[in-house]
Amino acid sequence: MITETRLVQFDSLELDCGETLHGLQVAYETYGRLNEEKNNAVLILHAFTGDAHAAGIDHEGKTGWWDNMIGPGKGFDTNRYFVICSNVLGGCRGTTGPSSMDPRTGRRYGLRFPVITISDMVRLQKKLIDHLGIPRLLAVAGGSMGGMQALEWAVAYPEAVEACIPIAATARHSAQQIAFNETGRQAIMMDPDFQNGDYPDDKPPARGLAVARMIGHITYMSDESMREKFGRRLRNREAFSFGFDIDFEVESYLRYRGQQFVGRFDANSYLYITKAMDYFDLTLGYPSLAASLERATARFLVISFTSDWLYPSYQSLEIVNALRSRNHDVTYCELTSNYGHDAFLVDIAEQTEVMRGFLDRCQRDFRRPQP
Amino acid sequence: MITETRLVQFDSLELDCGETLHGLQVAYETYGRLNEEKNNAVLILHAFTGDAHAAGIDHEGKTGWWDNMIGPGKGFDTNRYFVICSNVLGGCRGTTGPSSMDPRTGRRYGLRFPVITISDMVRLQKKLIDHLGIPRLLAVAGGSMGGMQALEWAVAYPEAVEACIPIAATARHSAQQIAFNETGRQAIMMDPDFQNGDYPDDKPPARGLAVARMIGHITYMSDESMREKFGRRLRNREAFSFGFDIDFEVESYLRYRGQQFVGRFDANSYLYITKAMDYFDLTLGYPSLAASLERATARFLVISFTSDWLYPSYQSLEIVNALRSRNHDVTYCELTSNYGHDAFLVDIAEQTEVMRGFLDRCQRDFRRPQP
Repeated sequence: MITETRLVQFDSLELDCGETLHGLQVAYETYGRLNEEKNNAVLILHAFTGDAHAAGIDHEGKTGWWDNMIGPGKGFDTNRYFVICSNVLGGCRGTTGPSSMDPRTGRRYGLRFPVITISDMVRLQKKLIDHLGIPRLLAVAGGSMGGMQALEWAVAYPEAVEACIPIAATARHSAQQIAFNETGRQAIMMDPDFQNGDYPDDKPPARGLAVARMIGHITYMSDESMREKFGRRLRNREAFSFGFDIDFEVESYLRYRGQQFVGRFDANSYLYITKAMDYFDLTLGYPSLAASLERATARFLVISFTSDWLYPSYQSLEIVNALRSRNHDVTYCELTSNYGHDAFLVDIAEQTEVMRGFLDRCQRDFRRPQP
Repeated sequence: MITETRLVQFDSLELDCGETLHGLQVAYETYGRLNEEKNNAVLILHAFTGDAHAAGIDHEGKTGWWDNMIGPGKGFDTNRYFVICSNVLGGCRGTTGPSSMDPRTGRRYGLRFPVITISDMVRLQKKLIDHLGIPRLLAVAGGSMGGMQALEWAVAYPEAVEACIPIAATARHSAQQIAFNETGRQAIMMDPDFQNGDYPDDKPPARGLAVARMIGHITYMSDESMREKFGRRLRNREAFSFGFDIDFEVESYLRYRGQQFVGRFDANSYLYITKAMDYFDLTLGYPSLAASLERATARFLVISFTSDWLYPSYQSLEIVNALRSRNHDVTYCELTSNYGHDAFLVDIAEQTEVMRGFLDRCQRDFRRPQP
């Protein structure tokens, strides 16, 4: 399946911070076909460093980040469903973000880009869905930050969401989650090459960004999966180096991943997107999570993974309990996996089964949008 | 209790890496009095960033890092026991380390300091204990890296150790533990001010060291203790800043702790001591952990804490099971605490009880050293 990223322009977007962005662009991909009833559209929402290329092979030969879940016969079966994925607002993979040109100045936004929220991201996605002529989505689904967007969709646009599938997600970032993000931001902003966000293309704050990514990678894996994958194995040596070069496999992996990330991700986007996650709090302005979810009319499938310590199951259960307390239709699956937070990307056998049954039921019971 | 750090000099120390250090100095403190039978000496071993000042108030008014455990009537009761604590080899608080003058060159060692191991640290401590005229210690005790040293003592000098008390420790660093340390080292070494270890006193790699410390602090606390201490509380504001200044209390705490650390700790010591921890593997050269512990004759008290995810209980249980498999005298206590890895420093009520009974028994059954 060869896929292509398309671009669509929008005039403006009002933001939670009070500012308005003008001249926006959204990068998106679609897989499968929208049926005549328009009841088979699934919006996939990507995690922190993801992009619109969720499935298939692009013109550079790169496989989509959730290709194991999206395609003919897969969890999101493209023989049945019309699947859409777009790069988030604030990203650096085609959608307007801090590395875009500010139409007012002709210069890059940099830190002059307004601070955005998960709800701003979703507001822009709604414009895309309207543009595609879809009155009601069969499902919104995503892992990690994608799950936060899915929850926001269910609350912000209840009339447009038949089913909501937050995976390995939370209704609000905890102190520990904020702390990890803040440490990554500090690593970037402390890099002298950061230059207050006005770094040139060929000299990004590479060292800080790499360190931030190393922290991230540790939190995405579980203690056990790191033990299985690396243990205490040495890298290309029989004995300790008694120096500060690479001794262990795990050191080599982290350094490599850190450096590789610099080539594909923008440091300012790192700041903006992590901040959006930290600000995310579905209860904001409501007396409780249950009260905030009251507006939602969607059916919910909430998924978490046993070894995910970054977005632990108790955070998913908080959502489930809030939904149950108001008699929402909610299915909760805690799947067994050793892969930690990465599980939603890699350990997909059970996830696929659960998804298939749930989507099938939701399409059968699809409620037509009120005109 | 006003305490004073004393210094003692040693001619040389042979290291695991094959090199020999000359002209060493050790900083240490003692509390209580050595009795005539010399069966009441307890060696306290400090964690990563600790120092010799374990108890009492020093001349600057600073309270020792384990003052809640060491003193008259406390867990390590100085009315009964003679308690010793020294700064580790490679440290920056009085004992020879990378910030010391190299007697061969008259310059600071910097990265010319040899890479050291936990066993090198213990070999130097043995010289101190010999210097103090103590043939056999009643106990060696410490948390975290202090626990690793305690284990090393029991295996390296079985004749000199009556009891061994590793707390919140491990017999070998896991891939995840190495990964966190390596990320901290990378943050430091990537700071342009690091200058390959030859930074001046007034311009250390402050940014990298602060980031490294921020990572550390997250790992020392539990998810739950961070939620209790900070939650999502904002710092001196009613609403989000929509900027990259401090929004949350937890951000303020981490930035403050990071900056504060720069004033009291040497970046090169950070590299050397974390490397020593990562190299630590009690099984090295043995077919199993049980085999390596076979040499030990000490009684063991192994303590871990329920919410410690950096040095999880399963690592303590690994030690306990290895000891039990060879019929060693071992008591294991998993104490309930929300404080994460910090618990051994702060949540000391139960720890005190356990310690008191164990030390009492060990002194009663004290086995005189063979002449």
